Order: sequence, then C-alpha cells, then structure tokens
Amino acid sequence: MEKYTIGLDYGTLSVRAELVSMTDGREVASCIYPYPHAVMESVLPDGVTPLPDKFALQQPQDYIDGLLHTVRGVMEESGVRPEQVVGIGMDVTSASILPVYKDKTPLCLTERFASEPHAWIKLWKHHAGEEEALEIDQKGRALGEPWVQMYGGKVSAEWATPKVLETLHKAPEVYEAADYFLEVMDWLTWILTDNLSTSTSAAGYKALHHHEYGFPSEAFFKALDPRMEHFIRDKYDLPVLPPGGRAGLLTEQMADVLGLRAGTPVSVPAIDAHCSMPGGGIDDPNEMMIVMGTSSCHLLLTEDTISVPGMQGVVKWGILPDYYGSEAGQSCVGDLFAWFMEHMVPASYEAEAAEQGISVHELLCRKLEGYRAGASGLIALDWMGGVRSPLMDFDLSGLILGLNLKTRPEDIYLCLIEATAFGTRAIIDSYENAGVPIRRIVLGGGIPRKNPFLVQVYADVLGRTVELAASDQACALGAAILGAAAAGQEGSGYADVHQAIRALAGQARQTIHPDPAQTERYDVLYDAYAELMDHFGRGGSDLMKRLLRLRRADAE
Amino acid sequence: MEKYTIGLDYGTLSVRAELVSMTDGREVASCIYPYPHAVMESVLPDGVTPLPDKFALQQPQDYIDGLLHTVRGVMEESGVRPEQVVGIGMDVTSASILPVYKDKTPLCLTERFASEPHAWIKLWKHHAGEEEALEIDQKGRALGEPWVQMYGGKVSAEWATPKVLETLHKAPEVYEAADYFLEVMDWLTWILTDNLSTSTSAAGYKALHHHEYGFPSEAFFKALDPRMEHFIRDKYDLPVLPPGGRAGLLTEQMADVLGLRAGTPVSVPAIDAHCSMPGGGIDDPNEMMIVMGTSSCHLLLTEDTISVPGMQGVVKWGILPDYYGSEAGQSCVGDLFAWFMEHMVPASYEAEAAEQGISVHELLCRKLEGYRAGASGLIALDWMGGVRSPLMDFDLSGLILGLNLKTRPEDIYLCLIEATAFGTRAIIDSYENAGVPIRRIVLGGGIPRKNPFLVQVYADVLGRTVELAASDQACALGAAILGAAAAGQEGSGYADVHQAIRALAGQARQTIHPDPAQTERYDVLYDAYAELMDHFGRGGSDLMKRLLRLRRADAE
Repeated sequence: MEKYTIGLDYGTLSVRAELVSMTDGREVASCIYPYPHAVMESVLPDGVTPLPDKFALQQPQDYIDGLLHTVRGVMEESGVRPEQVVGIGMDVTSASILPVYKDKTPLCLTERFASEPHAWIKLWKHHAGEEEALEIDQKGRALGEPWVQMYGGKVSAEWATPKVLETLHKAPEVYEAADYFLEVMDWLTWILTDNLSTSTSAAGYKALHHHEYGFPSEAFFKALDPRMEHFIRDKYDLPVLPPGGRAGLLTEQMADVLGLRAGTPVSVPAIDAHCSMPGGGIDDPNEMMIVMGTSSCHLLLTEDTISVPGMQGVVKWGILPDYYGSEAGQSCVGDLFAWFMEHMVPASYEAEAAEQGISVHELLCRKLEGYRAGASGLIALDWMGGVRSPLMDFDLSGLILGLNLKTRPEDIYLCLIEATAFGTRAIIDSYENAGVPIRRIVLGGGIPRKNPFLVQVYADVLGRTVELAASDQACALGAAILGAAAAGQEGSGYADVHQAIRALAGQARQTIHPDPAQTERYDVLYDAYAELMDHFGRGGSDLMKRLLRLRRADAE
Repeated sequence: MEKYTIGLDYGTLSVRAELVSMTDGREVASCIYPYPHAVMESVLPDGVTPLPDKFALQQPQDYIDGLLHTVRGVMEESGVRPEQVVGIGMDVTSASILPVYKDKTPLCLTERFASEPHAWIKLWKHHAGEEEALEIDQKGRALGEPWVQMYGGKVSAEWATPKVLETLHKAPEVYEAADYFLEVMDWLTWILTDNLSTSTSAAGYKALHHHEYGFPSEAFFKALDPRMEHFIRDKYDLPVLPPGGRAGLLTEQMADVLGLRAGTPVSVPAIDAHCSMPGGGIDDPNEMMIVMGTSSCHLLLTEDTISVPGMQGVVKWGILPDYYGSEAGQSCVGDLFAWFMEHMVPASYEAEAAEQGISVHELLCRKLEGYRAGASGLIALDWMGGVRSPLMDFDLSGLILGLNLKTRPEDIYLCLIEATAFGTRAIIDSYENAGVPIRRIVLGGGIPRKNPFLVQVYADVLGRTVELAASDQACALGAAILGAAAAGQEGSGYADVHQAIRALAGQARQTIHPDPAQTERYDVLYDAYAELMDHFGRGGSDLMKRLLRLRRADAE
C-alpha cells in the first residue's frame, strides 16, 4: 500500500494542502483555498466597525473552512484512500494570535465580541502594538530577563506578547474573558487532535520562551501590567513541544468531516517560512535557507547557541530537532521589485515590451544583458520597508545614490536587485563575523524560481555558489515531511524528521556559480553599501529618522 | 520718428532677433533661425571625420546665415525703415572659441583645415579639455596668478584658455596657423564693425583676464607650454571693452546685406545668459537674476569685489558697467526634470493624463495639490549633472533618500524640484555667509514661466518673495537694451545702459510670496540637504567618486 502524508501550508492569504508520496516525496495532489475575508485592515466583517491604523486582522472561520476544503480537495483529486494517509503536517503564519474560550470557540465568533477588533485574529503583520513592543523590550532589559539575549535586536510588534499586551491596554474585557491567547497554529492543532499545546518554535520565536528558563517571570509580566502578572499560568500554560514530533492524533469528529482516518498522527505545527527548510532539503547545521518572497527570511541551524547582532531569534530546537534554529530577515524584497515595476517603469518600456511580446521584467533583463557590475554608477539601500536584519530598525528608509542623466530604468532595477543581495551579504557577514560559518546557501520561495537573472546577481554579489530548492512548494512539502515525522517509522517508514528530509526533499534543482570578475567589482560596491549602512543605520547620521519625524508630523 | 533697436540672441541651437521699440520696450517683431548644423558631437560636416568623446563643435557659417536671416526677417515683418533702427545689441554663448585668420576667415572654412576638428568652433559645452583645465588651475595656483582669486572653484574646461591649450596639444598646426582665437561674439562683432575687440565679460569670465593685472603673464603661459609664451601678444591682443558700450559702427558692406543703415552703432557683445539681467530689469546691486533653463545661472551685481566659495567668477564690469558682476550656476535643472519625465513616469500616469486631457506635468501637479513639505519623507541631491556652485565638482552624482513603498512618482518629481530649490538656497547662503546680502530675486528663463508650481516651491524653500521676469525673451530684450545703450542719448534717447534698463525692461510679471508654514518645514529639509552636501560633497565621504571610478573603469 502506497503511503502518503498531507502537508497544510497556511499563508497570509490562502491555505494550500499537498498530498505527498512517502516513497519519493512526489507531490501527488494539491488544493488551494483563498481566505474569503483575506486580511482585514479597514473594517470588521460586521461592515461598520472601522479598524485603526496598522491593524491587520483575520477571520478564524476562514481557516476552518480552508482546512475542510483543501483536505477534501486533495483526497478527491488523488483518489487516495483515507488509510493511506499516515500523517498530517502543518505550518501557519506566526505570530497570528487569537483569544479563545476553553471550548475552543474564538471570542470574535460570539455575539458579545463580534464587533470588538481585539477579539479577532491579530495577523503576524498587525503592527498596532509598537508601543507595547518597546515597553516589553525596555522592561525585559531592565529586569535582566534571560530571553533578551536570544534576540539580536528588539522585540517586534509582530510577536505574541505585544499583541496580548495591546489587547489588555485597549480592550481589557477581551483579555479578561479569554481563557487562552493562542497562536492560530495551536488553535488548529487543538481542533484537529483535542490536545492543547504549543511548540518550541512559536514559544521561542514569538512568545519570549527560553529553553532553560521557560516563559518570562511573573515579576516581568507584573512590571508590564499588574493585571498580567499571572498571564502564563492563567492563559498560556501550554506544554511546549519540539518540532518534528507529534502533537496528537486526529479526533473521530475531525476525521469524519475531513474524510480521513481517526487516529492519524498530526505534527507539532511549524512557523510557515521555517517549513521551507525541511522542504528545501536542509538538514545540516551551517547551511542557510533563504526564502525569498515579498520579504526574505534566512534560516540556519547551528550546533550551539550563537549571538549574532540583529538576528531575530536563536531558539533551541526552534526549527528542527537537535539544533539551535536562528532566523534573520529582510523586510522588503519582492515588495520592492513590485513597487519599482508599478511606479518607475516608463510607458515607453511597456510599449517596447508589448511590441516584443515579452514582459517588462524580461525587457529590463535583456537591456541588462552582458552588464558589468558598477557600470551604472548606482548603489541603493534596500530599506524601503525598514530593516530587519542586521539593524532591526524600521525607522530607516531607502536610498539610491549615483544617479546621473544617463541613468535608465534598467539601471535602477538592477541596483535594487543588487541592494537586496548586498542586504543578504550583510546578514551572512554578521553570522560569519560572529564566528558562525555558512557552508551552503539554498534559495527558496517564488522569486528565485521565476528570476534567474536575480539568482546570478546574488551568486555574483555573495561570491558564492547558490542552489535553487527542488520543490516549487517547499513549505507545503516541508509540512508533509513533518507529517511523515509525526507518523514515525511504523507509519511513514521514517524514524525521524532528519530521515524524512533526506528521503523526500530531493536534490537542488540547479546550482549557480559566481562570475569572479563580477564578484571582484561587487566587492567594491559592497564596501560602499556597508559604508552607507554604517552611516545612515548605525549612528553616523540620524537623517532618516529626522525625515520620518517630519513625515509623521504631517500625518498627525 | 519711432525708434527701434535690434537685439540678437545667439543661443546654443538657434539665433533670435527681436526688434524693440525705444518708447516702451515693446517687442515689435521677432525671427528665429535654427543652426542647420546644430551641435556637432559625432562627425564633422565632411561626413567622415569622427569626433572624439566630449567634443561639441559648431559651424561658423550658421552664425552668419542666421544673422542675415533674422535681421532681414524682423525688418520685413515690421515694415520698420532702416533709419529707424538706431542700434544693434548682441549676446552669444560663451566661451565658444574659433581660430581665424586676420582676414576674418575661420580656419575651418579653408580647404586645409576643413577636416580638422580643432579648427571649428568649440562650443561652450565642448568638454574635451578637462585635463588642460586642471593643468591651468594647478599652474595658476602654483605661480600665484592674480586671477585665481576671481574664481571660487576651479578653472572650467568650458572656458577659452583650456580650449586653446587643448588645440595646441592636439593640433599644433591649427594653433600655429591661426592669427587669432576669438570668442564667436567677438568674431561676429568684427564682421559687423570691422573693429576687433573683446569685452570685460568674456575676457574676465572665460579668459582669466583680471581688471587690474590684465591677462595672465607670459611666464604663466610659458609654464603651460613654451610654445604658448606669447599667446596674448600674438593671438589675443585685443582691446577689452566694458559692457553697455559701443564696439563700433555697422560697415557699409554689412549694412547692405542686412538692409540696415551704415554707421548704426553696435554694442559690446554680452554673454548670453548675462543679458537676461538687463532684460529682466535688474540694474541694482544685490539683486539676483536666476535664469532657469536646462541649467540655472545666478547673476548678481555688487558694489565691491567679493569672495564667495564656489562661485564661477567675480568680474569688475563683468555684466553691467559700474559694478562687479558675479555668476554662479546649477548644472542640471531643466535637464533633470526632462530626465525624470522621460525615464521615471509610469505608463499608468501617461494613460491617466491622456484620459483627463492634460499633460503629465499637470497630472503630477494635481496629485501634489495641497501637499505639505516633507510629507513624502524624501530628499534628493540635484547632482545628476555634477555640481557647479557652490562645490565646483563634476565627479559628484545624484541621490534620492527616504524612499519607501508608499513613494509615488509625484513624490519623486516634487523632491527633484525641491532639490534644485535647495541647490539655489545653498548658493544664496554662500553669498550671504560671505557677507553679500541678496535683497531681491527675479526668475527668468523658460521654466518658471511655464511652471507656476515650481515657482511656489522655490518661494517656499527660499522663504523669500520671488518675482517673474516680465519678458518672455529676457535675453533678446537685454541685447536690444545693449543696442540702445550703444546708440546713446542722441540715438535711442537713453544716456546709458542703466537708463535704458529702467525705461525698457518693464515691471516683474508676477510676485510670488512664500507660505510660512511650508517654509518652516522646508527649513528642516534644507538642514538635511546641507548635511548631505557636506557629507558627500565636502569630504565626509568620497563614495560618489569611488563609484565614478568603478563606472569609468567599466568604460575603459
């Protein structure tokens, strides 16, 4: 009997299920469900309650509906029988936080709280808790909390703790009424298995959990707000499970509605981008997975804990078992190219592309054919969305320098691509300068697959060979691999997640080598990038912050 | 009998004649003649001799043909009789340098030199003598030549001396054969009057002439090249006449071909942009005329000599009699906006403008309506064509800082306009910091007339009232005013150029006041501009020069 697992990949706008063969990792069927409410940024589903600035909410029912639709979808499409599905793995965006009652009902789905914004899912990119993040950061440092050393920079408004503190400040009745504040991934796992738990990933990366000391102390929470003193005991007292393990078994009720077998093992859920690491075939320490989408995420396993300035977190067993997982990121990559394409490509180029029957991107690449690094005289800072790693500063902004009357759109396009590559090089440098060698680089996500020109620029800028991940859907494949690990030897044939990765993730699709002549010239440009980074980002000049103040003064 | 003068305005691509009434300065008739050979940058008129990089040559016959065509044109159009034309005034681009024989024939119009690039007019923007300019600068300083103090920055490749030295280096047979190296304006005046002279303007601004010490010493020229020791005595020994005076009287022969009266007074010719000062109605010291075209030129009269860093020249009687004339400039203004319009406006904006039946410029202005300074968070350095004043450094380049994903094309357009205004403010600051107050500002040239939005930005950035020059053709009107001055009391009714300016130039077309709230915010942005100028232009960082070296290394 051929065996399969289902990988569920919950992204920002849709969920995808992939049915994967346990023989060779082949993706047999897939099904996507876009969330009907997508991201709510201006009004609640009641159609009348407006949302403040920086809110990004979601509707939990969309996640349940997506679960049913996609699981049934892959089963129907493939004709696979329920008993052939030996495990379910799942990844979800994080920190996406939902207040729930102990019967699993989200507060927002009750009449009492339907019109209360703080009762809905606060999506990972909900940024309204920036003041709370700052306060958590300051109090944590002041009290010498052990978790402070895990994060290279500052506490992010995107994490769980600021989101909960914001709820306490702005909607104390929601805080009071909620039995739990859960990551959506933990809520979904609870529904699937009837077991309530969280993971070393979510707890470590998003909820200040430390592998030795556990969650922050009651003294710390009391310092934040006396009403929050017993937050962990009262509303977050969950077992913290390691990745690659089993969170529970599918309940009879859920098996019925999904058309699966009751008792099917369900994985400990993972943070979505993290799943690209097993899905991209990385299983060894000091090999970096770079997932490039609207933003970029840099994932790395290490044998020991590391301290690298500006990294977003170093968590024991944070990504895969047996290693420390560390994460870095660039906030604006695909977003940056989309911004350029929408706002900076002249009509004449669109006409030229149309005439040649090619895309504007292709036209720009053709115009750049045979270019030599530095020939345009341009350099950019890719800070149009602020800076995650290594500076962790969102009050910075983008820059283009070297403009002259011979500057053409393709020169700007190239310098933006280069800037994101320099940003990646700065992150790699931060690791290596901290004594953490990077021995291999795999690129995943949509951009490198679609843009070979960019991949070559990255290889040239980094001066390293880079590989392209084998799967088009590395995250979903990674989730299915977690499902295989949850099923264990008996179920899937793989004793642990490491075995499953090696057997199922496949070889890199392509290996790209740097051009030494280009790299030599990029070394000069990278020095310039580093100088600008130091000057505008590390205290040389606070000009960008002054401009931001003036800009914000306008909005007030 | 109604009296008139003719103003001849020789620009880069065409010559314009205006027939102006001596009663009220009214422009009665005008005629334009575009030079058939325009600017020769790639090949000589022989169709086979290629031109090296940075060459910009012209055909002298075009100037003569233009003279005949336009003077006859205004006479025919107006029906004015020859005896009613009491004077001729002229302005010409400078330094535009032509080697000639003593019978007035240009070397390039002889068979021997027709295929020799160095025998043609080297137009003001011929930049191939950059090394020579550097050498002149260094030797001048080393020898303590008195003219060094007249120029705030460096000797420009655009001036006469580097152009001649370049000819000596590259085509010594041309240097040897030429009886004179003349400004085109002096050659034209010689043809009109049979008198050979030059002006304090051309000599002072472009040929290192000092009002007390005269031309540079023979020792200096010998240091440049022993063959050039007697350059002034042998090839440039011309009387240096003051502006607002008479260079001579129209010869019978020229009167015949032009259809004018023999003996008509001809003015001492002026540098083209300088003529916008009388034409724009400025006659008093400490009032600045800013002529805005592809580049901007800032003209100022002062009672005494001044020393302002980065100004292009301070010349006694350099613009108008009785005062010191000083000139500053921004190399890239209209050019910058044209570059933006051509390469950075997206197709969607062109479509939107077409739909609304307005120009893209108008669409951008509408989108900016009611904007508040600093709202976009952007700031730019307008150095896309290098920097004339106050840095005199053409190895600098442009910058845009503060970019973010909300940045739209209109934001970039605005920040480029603002940057040119900050550049002007930096020039004004340089004067005032050197103890030279600026009491009035008049804008002339095509841009302010066509772009009221830009004029308001300038008023707000400068925090000063600005005026728009009355005439659409301030240079040609200024030339006609010089013609009136050359005619004198008896001819035109005006005793000198000052009287003629007051009577003929008219009041400002419009006066624009700054918005104090905008000015307050622009003060913050200007501090940012000044900081960037210091950092990238005054030694904080040589990044722009390093990028340029890399760019040039590519071209090699």
